[in-house]
Amino acid sequence: MKKLRIGLFGFGVVGTGLYDVIHKTKGIHAKIVKICVKHRDKARPIPMDFFTFDKNDILNDDSLDVVVELIDNADEAFDIVSAAMKKGKAVVSANKRMIAENFHELYELQKKHNAPFLYEASACGSIPIIRNLEEYYDNDLLTSLEGICNGTTNYILTKTSEEKISYADALKGAQQSGFAESDPTLDVKAFDAKFKLTILLTHTFGIFVKHNEIFNFGIQNLSVEDSTFAKEKGVRIKLIAHTFSANGKILAYVMPKFIHKGDMFYDVRNEFNAVQLEASFSDKQFFYGKGAGSHPTASAVLSDLAALMYDYHYEYKKYNQRLESNNKANGTTFTNDQLLNVYLRYSDEKLLKDLQFAEIDQQYFSHNFKYVIGKVSVAKLLEHKLNDRDDVFVVRY
Amino acid sequence: MKKLRIGLFGFGVVGTGLYDVIHKTKGIHAKIVKICVKHRDKARPIPMDFFTFDKNDILNDDSLDVVVELIDNADEAFDIVSAAMKKGKAVVSANKRMIAENFHELYELQKKHNAPFLYEASACGSIPIIRNLEEYYDNDLLTSLEGICNGTTNYILTKTSEEKISYADALKGAQQSGFAESDPTLDVKAFDAKFKLTILLTHTFGIFVKHNEIFNFGIQNLSVEDSTFAKEKGVRIKLIAHTFSANGKILAYVMPKFIHKGDMFYDVRNEFNAVQLEASFSDKQFFYGKGAGSHPTASAVLSDLAALMYDYHYEYKKYNQRLESNNKANGTTFTNDQLLNVYLRYSDEKLLKDLQFAEIDQQYFSHNFKYVIGKVSVAKLLEHKLNDRDDVFVVRY
Repeated sequence: MKKLRIGLFGFGVVGTGLYDVIHKTKGIHAKIVKICVKHRDKARPIPMDFFTFDKNDILNDDSLDVVVELIDNADEAFDIVSAAMKKGKAVVSANKRMIAENFHELYELQKKHNAPFLYEASACGSIPIIRNLEEYYDNDLLTSLEGICNGTTNYILTKTSEEKISYADALKGAQQSGFAESDPTLDVKAFDAKFKLTILLTHTFGIFVKHNEIFNFGIQNLSVEDSTFAKEKGVRIKLIAHTFSANGKILAYVMPKFIHKGDMFYDVRNEFNAVQLEASFSDKQFFYGKGAGSHPTASAVLSDLAALMYDYHYEYKKYNQRLESNNKANGTTFTNDQLLNVYLRYSDEKLLKDLQFAEIDQQYFSHNFKYVIGKVSVAKLLEHKLNDRDDVFVVRY
Repeated sequence: MKKLRIGLFGFGVVGTGLYDVIHKTKGIHAKIVKICVKHRDKARPIPMDFFTFDKNDILNDDSLDVVVELIDNADEAFDIVSAAMKKGKAVVSANKRMIAENFHELYELQKKHNAPFLYEASACGSIPIIRNLEEYYDNDLLTSLEGICNGTTNYILTKTSEEKISYADALKGAQQSGFAESDPTLDVKAFDAKFKLTILLTHTFGIFVKHNEIFNFGIQNLSVEDSTFAKEKGVRIKLIAHTFSANGKILAYVMPKFIHKGDMFYDVRNEFNAVQLEASFSDKQFFYGKGAGSHPTASAVLSDLAALMYDYHYEYKKYNQRLESNNKANGTTFTNDQLLNVYLRYSDEKLLKDLQFAEIDQQYFSHNFKYVIGKVSVAKLLEHKLNDRDDVFVVRY
């Protein structure tokens, strides 16, 4: 069993949590030796000898065999992670954006430099979903993965559905309680959830998809009318990342969905996350746990470190099986060409026309509230940039 | 990657499911070569060349590297499994009773003969709980595991709580629908759940405990009064297996528990199973999936086979870490010496006295319904053989 010597990048919420968790865990043979941070004058809770401000102090130190990357900036993170892998170091990261933006390259780097790269903390925090997809569901034929992958939006949606408050007030409350950042764009517009989905998709179906090919629609336009509509129907609105296979094609998108009582997602409240898998033989599988926070995220990083002690690495079996069979006709390609049942609140009739609904089952309009319920293709939602408009709200029905 | 040649024992519900599942799964390099069954005259859905009635045809065949044991009888199963391990074959089993009754010996056999022994299907069907406990939670400090581990009782309890029917009628219905056996004793008296808990306990806390040291109390005495009491309080009764650590000791028992709305267990209905872990850092983790059935159980067996293709075996890290530290004072021992909050319906005042409640918070009696709510030790419940009486019902409160 290896003893790990760690160079850590970033010492924010998760970094300090990790420091704490490593020191309170008996079974882990790992030591944080050096920590690279940005701000020279920030007060630190541990002695200053640990810290450096030069990334090369870690990258060029051959005595450090593991780099843990926990910084915010995705570009800087990629520089650090790829440099570390080129040096043959094992890398653990929680940076979903960085991974989603460079996923295939990171896969190639692992192969080329024989450097394990683990990132359980990048998707759904404490839920061991990547490891399960990678290790346990490799031969059970998965057909679908749905997840509440973003704690911020789930916290806001819990408030708007259970208390009579508007989206704007719920967002303000979330910011005050530390559940939303001062700039919440990545969360509320469902980019964060999409980055996670991009990662989960590869481990579910064994294909790499560029995140900008995946449709995302957030909760930023949620109106009182939308909330009232949901309440009248007895359903809750949740932001759900979804990937599934249909007719040999893979689909994926993130958008709000109406969740019925009795559905396991219904009681996933506040900052909790959840993932539901469907497989040909094991039927539905549901995982639930804290999606964010210092210790829950650190515990996912810790489990990656524990795995490194045993020389674990992701094998990307499904991707490799797909490459081996090398038969795309028989295999799976990504598509947005699929009809979805949606509720669409809109104001602009031209948009409705442009979206070319294949079927409209219900239509309602009053002076200030118009919606349709019907079938529309994901490709059209993406093409017409629904997430950039402020006059629509679309929900899987 | 190995190609597995399998000798299968038993061709009932799970066995036929496994045959089916293996043949529909592309990625699995495994072949069922021979099947040993008991009944010579039973009609079989596949050609008779597959079958043998002599276990030695499999055990002595060196070309078969894996034995999958899916028979009912625990003693015969142990003979087969231990003989196979002594021959150095890898073994996969779903037989919780056999494992619970011989767990430490099976551990020693694995070590001695270097034979992998996997049994994911033995606890909570399709939920990958053993693998997760073994691989993912090895260094996160687990504090508690609770589970709905028995589909039969959960099916019955779903009926008695959601429909106005008695335990006896619900049991009859479960038997007619195939969710309960004609002799339901092992299920309804919570022995099945206890066998599973015995297994999960080892993978949670790294100790082996004899199953007869663990208190189990089933649902066989559930009365209309008990159900009404739960309904009035707005709670549901679920049969929960529980193991946790407190003050350096490990506790475990299986008994009914009142589950509140909003609790993740509340909506686990019918034959579904669920497990909730609590850990120092990752907080609550919840897993949900089908607990029984041909394909769900077979999919757990399949995942073990897939793991064998990569030479996987359980490492029992927690147990070995405990042995290494070899410090029992600092380590963990099993105890029943712990107070629990319970609801106890009873008729015999002498029993109430014998149980020596440390505290009684509520007491009620009418002509035909008496209960107390208070704190009682697990040791006393075990000592007075509550599960063998027909005049009591005890529920964790």
